[in-house]
Amino acid sequence: MHQRKIGGKATGHFGASLWRGGFSWTGSPLEFNWHPVLMVSGLVVLHGNAALVYRVPFTWRQRKQTWKLVHAGLMLVGFILSVLGLYVVFDYHRGLNLTHLYSLHSWVGICTVAVFWILGLAGFLFPCSPLCFRSNLKPVHVCVGKAILILSLISCVSGITEKLQLVLGEPYSSLPVEGKFANFLGLLIVSFGLVVLGILSKDNWQRPETDGEAIHVSVAAILL
Amino acid sequence: MHQRKIGGKATGHFGASLWRGGFSWTGSPLEFNWHPVLMVSGLVVLHGNAALVYRVPFTWRQRKQTWKLVHAGLMLVGFILSVLGLYVVFDYHRGLNLTHLYSLHSWVGICTVAVFWILGLAGFLFPCSPLCFRSNLKPVHVCVGKAILILSLISCVSGITEKLQLVLGEPYSSLPVEGKFANFLGLLIVSFGLVVLGILSKDNWQRPETDGEAIHVSVAAILL
Repeated sequence: MHQRKIGGKATGHFGASLWRGGFSWTGSPLEFNWHPVLMVSGLVVLHGNAALVYRVPFTWRQRKQTWKLVHAGLMLVGFILSVLGLYVVFDYHRGLNLTHLYSLHSWVGICTVAVFWILGLAGFLFPCSPLCFRSNLKPVHVCVGKAILILSLISCVSGITEKLQLVLGEPYSSLPVEGKFANFLGLLIVSFGLVVLGILSKDNWQRPETDGEAIHVSVAAILL
Repeated sequence: MHQRKIGGKATGHFGASLWRGGFSWTGSPLEFNWHPVLMVSGLVVLHGNAALVYRVPFTWRQRKQTWKLVHAGLMLVGFILSVLGLYVVFDYHRGLNLTHLYSLHSWVGICTVAVFWILGLAGFLFPCSPLCFRSNLKPVHVCVGKAILILSLISCVSGITEKLQLVLGEPYSSLPVEGKFANFLGLLIVSFGLVVLGILSKDNWQRPETDGEAIHVSVAAILL
């Protein structure tokens, strides 16, 4: 599973290096190439990993608190990558005087990031909140987490579609190697997302509540 | 809920009539305009409705068999619409000598339809199959049904993105009324799909097994 996730991330990086001139941080159109790599890594790969940490059976005998920290850590890195991913695309647009947020991809994408950030912020505050509040909000947290993954898949596929049409134009229909590669990458991202959602939907793969929710330790306090 | 679904379908139809020259059956590029209307109606609206028929509380005191027929009927109409939706796009491509199945939208879309048809065929055969086989396959049926809805949302948004870029080109970034309308339609479709998936994820909204799965009546036999 992990090899597959890293594979997907590496594949996107490889694609941008091979056909789109590689990467640059500021002052170059190559800055854009960071956008798909950062967004897919943050919102699909890390978010998908974070959602699955409670579903790995060998961890069930270990302390839940440890895996809460892993979950929070992965989400935090995902959050940072999504901030950077948005920064580079806005900076790239500004540099070339392109309009921000006009396409359907950008509309769905900005909603995805907004919900991801809100859930991340709320999740960060959860460990400090009263037990009854946390247990009531847990189903919402899980449900919104799944919705973010679905929105991320939609954003990825529409983003790849948009980019391919912009850079390949008419020759896209003859399926050059870059087109085939990006289409396969899109299918890989969708398959990964569906596998994660499939695993999450299995009730008997849920972590048994051995530690008990009553252990009330602030993740914020530990992290700081 | 139902008004919203019909609203989404009607909105798509209205959009195609207003900006894309309306509809035609064969021998005209207007044939393409049926494609989004038929696919969204079949794979999102009807499939979404069909998935929800067991979650409507007032039906829980009625015979399950009746609602199995409603479920099967909606799926059947969805299946017919998806066949027509694929037919018109292939016919349109053939008429203009355009390449079939090159884009990521078409790759995801054809996978969605294939899984929808396979599940539809399998679902049609379920009522004739032994009880133990059906009860074992039910979780798979439910899980694949949700995956089809997610794939449909991805296909819709990538399809709208592709179409808008092809027909609007550069002026899309100035967000003309058609662009805004289609973007909102995309968000409406995604919201509808997420609401359906949210309802399906709530265990306490599942229909109680009052009739019992043991009533072994063939839907196929009743329909024929």
